[in-house]
Amino acid sequence: MKALGPIPPEFTALDGELAIAGRPASSLVKEAGDTPLFVYSRDIIEQRIAGLRAAMPERLNIHYAMKANPYGPLLEFIADLVDGLDIASIGEFEQAREAGYLPREISFAGPGKRDRELFAAIKAGVTLNLESENEAERALQMGKQLKVKPRLAIRVNPTFELRGSGMKMGGGAKPFGIDADRVPALARKIVDAGANWQGFHIYSGSQALDAEALIEAQGQVLHLAEQLANDAEVDVPHLNMGGGFGIPYFDKDTPVDISAIGAALEQRFAELPEVLRETRFAIELGRFLVGESGVYLTRIVDRKVSHDTTYLITDGGLHHQLAASGNFGTVVRRNYPVAIATRFDAEAEEIVNVVGCLCTPLDRLADAAHLPRAEVGDLVAVFCAGAYGASASPATFLGQGAAREMLV
Amino acid sequence: MKALGPIPPEFTALDGELAIAGRPASSLVKEAGDTPLFVYSRDIIEQRIAGLRAAMPERLNIHYAMKANPYGPLLEFIADLVDGLDIASIGEFEQAREAGYLPREISFAGPGKRDRELFAAIKAGVTLNLESENEAERALQMGKQLKVKPRLAIRVNPTFELRGSGMKMGGGAKPFGIDADRVPALARKIVDAGANWQGFHIYSGSQALDAEALIEAQGQVLHLAEQLANDAEVDVPHLNMGGGFGIPYFDKDTPVDISAIGAALEQRFAELPEVLRETRFAIELGRFLVGESGVYLTRIVDRKVSHDTTYLITDGGLHHQLAASGNFGTVVRRNYPVAIATRFDAEAEEIVNVVGCLCTPLDRLADAAHLPRAEVGDLVAVFCAGAYGASASPATFLGQGAAREMLV
Repeated sequence: MKALGPIPPEFTALDGELAIAGRPASSLVKEAGDTPLFVYSRDIIEQRIAGLRAAMPERLNIHYAMKANPYGPLLEFIADLVDGLDIASIGEFEQAREAGYLPREISFAGPGKRDRELFAAIKAGVTLNLESENEAERALQMGKQLKVKPRLAIRVNPTFELRGSGMKMGGGAKPFGIDADRVPALARKIVDAGANWQGFHIYSGSQALDAEALIEAQGQVLHLAEQLANDAEVDVPHLNMGGGFGIPYFDKDTPVDISAIGAALEQRFAELPEVLRETRFAIELGRFLVGESGVYLTRIVDRKVSHDTTYLITDGGLHHQLAASGNFGTVVRRNYPVAIATRFDAEAEEIVNVVGCLCTPLDRLADAAHLPRAEVGDLVAVFCAGAYGASASPATFLGQGAAREMLV
Repeated sequence: MKALGPIPPEFTALDGELAIAGRPASSLVKEAGDTPLFVYSRDIIEQRIAGLRAAMPERLNIHYAMKANPYGPLLEFIADLVDGLDIASIGEFEQAREAGYLPREISFAGPGKRDRELFAAIKAGVTLNLESENEAERALQMGKQLKVKPRLAIRVNPTFELRGSGMKMGGGAKPFGIDADRVPALARKIVDAGANWQGFHIYSGSQALDAEALIEAQGQVLHLAEQLANDAEVDVPHLNMGGGFGIPYFDKDTPVDISAIGAALEQRFAELPEVLRETRFAIELGRFLVGESGVYLTRIVDRKVSHDTTYLITDGGLHHQLAASGNFGTVVRRNYPVAIATRFDAEAEEIVNVVGCLCTPLDRLADAAHLPRAEVGDLVAVFCAGAYGASASPATFLGQGAAREMLV
């Protein structure tokens, strides 16, 4: 038996079924028309953001990193709850615009921005988080060409990393941002060139659950921003402090202690150095805001036994849930939280492997999971499906196509 | 420095550039309109299939497993070169039909076939490779309902595995096929039910380079088919012997010795047991037929140095080349064959990391690669991109969208 990850506490049973936003899973599938289906809960997104607001200093802005989930209705819904949006391509900019975001609420990071992307962003008035001196040069040139002052910030490659983070975005050589020691000269140049200087973006890692590590990294971010601003003799209108707050995916994972982080940040904000006193601070979160709001529902199409091992074979799989299958940045596969949605309050009574419908041994949703007995037609729920699910999986693989999505 | 995989020998330089089908890479990009671009070479596909025909016994049919590459023009092109098509979903069936394949040339394997998929396949006359007793039952029922004799074969979960294969599809408990010891009873039942009995499909692994291992597995497949047929007292109109022929992706990989495999198979075919004498044999290959025909071309949009490491940042990445990035069924990432397409015959003179444009450290195309000096605007080629590339990668991730594709 292999342990399953923890189901987010908001999910309860209704008439024996998993309920999402007060409705049984099977009724949501009926409304959507078919499985596989991603369901995202407005309530849970609201709760996560309200909890964060309550824990964090009031002056801290919360940005949504839309790469986590660009589903249109979710993007529209979250617009009223956050203070800004972070995008990673012009494709995302177009989706954001359709969802009603204004260019001045948007900042654009990404190490490989094409000329046409820079052009569109500058023309619209999006803030660019510059990732290299070359990119800065191109942006300044395009500003001249367009006769606008481009809104420019510098993404810094910090010398520290976020301890315990799932993905390290700082510390040592990286394709992201500009090495801290070269930042002051570039900041000075951008200000002198008459651009609309926006400040710094310092991102050191993602998917961290350890509050101490996050507190330490935030302290380092503030210290680095102060140093850079003093060295460059520039002010810091905005400081994007990065994100990095993780969610519990696996057994023994515990939620981030956001009240500890908020208290530490409150204290730091009370003792800010001169150069950061007028700064607008933001954290940029994707997964933390929306990850736990999502459930992936897939139907069991076969139940079979091979050499004494029982397989539940579903109509979903890694083409929608690449990360849950263990094939996206994972060395050792562990089980996400998974349940039989249509027997949500039944006792676990057997050990089964839950797999997808693809003809590949990579297509695993839960290994050796202890679950209630399920039959063909039952629905399986994979939790923590709100971030890096639908948009971060190879939907066209084996001719399957995209899953349905709904916001409830 | 980390070694790069071997570039398929067909690729040579023309005016200093990588040539594909006699045309320089930059001219192909110009015709396609933009990068990133997948280019597939008709010549190389033809050569691979001709080589295989020459090496294999004449009576062996060659099927194309379209999951490797479902690009429409390629699918049309290969139709005249192969004897059958293997699909893994009704989505693939629709693509195959558009490309002009006839249902009787098609067989459908996949552990999670939905009712509507079974229905469509049976109605059209596609051969089903049955993956469970339950699926057999459903197929027989639907045949009655539709008043047609469904074309049914059994996919067998063999007790052996293909040694050294990249993915094991047999040996022990598996979600694929039916355990060999239960096959005779089911085969008997299907024949007795009056279905259009097609025989067996025995697939033991994929991406193997060791001819000895493939020869051994083919021997076991023939032996198992004979046993099953005798036990069930059924004949074997068709035997799909699986595939498993790999291509060299990584340093020190060498091509499969197909002549050794062909010779061994020739000998086995000369000594066939009674029950297999009239059988039509097929091997089912995807990667081997089309993998080396494809090149992924992406443009360098930035060249930057971080802590003494040089990064070439391209407009492509794991959203089109998930496997090359090391995130698809790989434990230790190794470099695919990669080159600077626009300086194809230049001397290697620096060690660089080639990365994609996504904001994630997972987005790597070549680590510590020894390459000619390249500048912004140069094209990077990732080889072995003809299989499990465009269709097996998360194209929508970070709002990027699909790459262009062309067959030349």
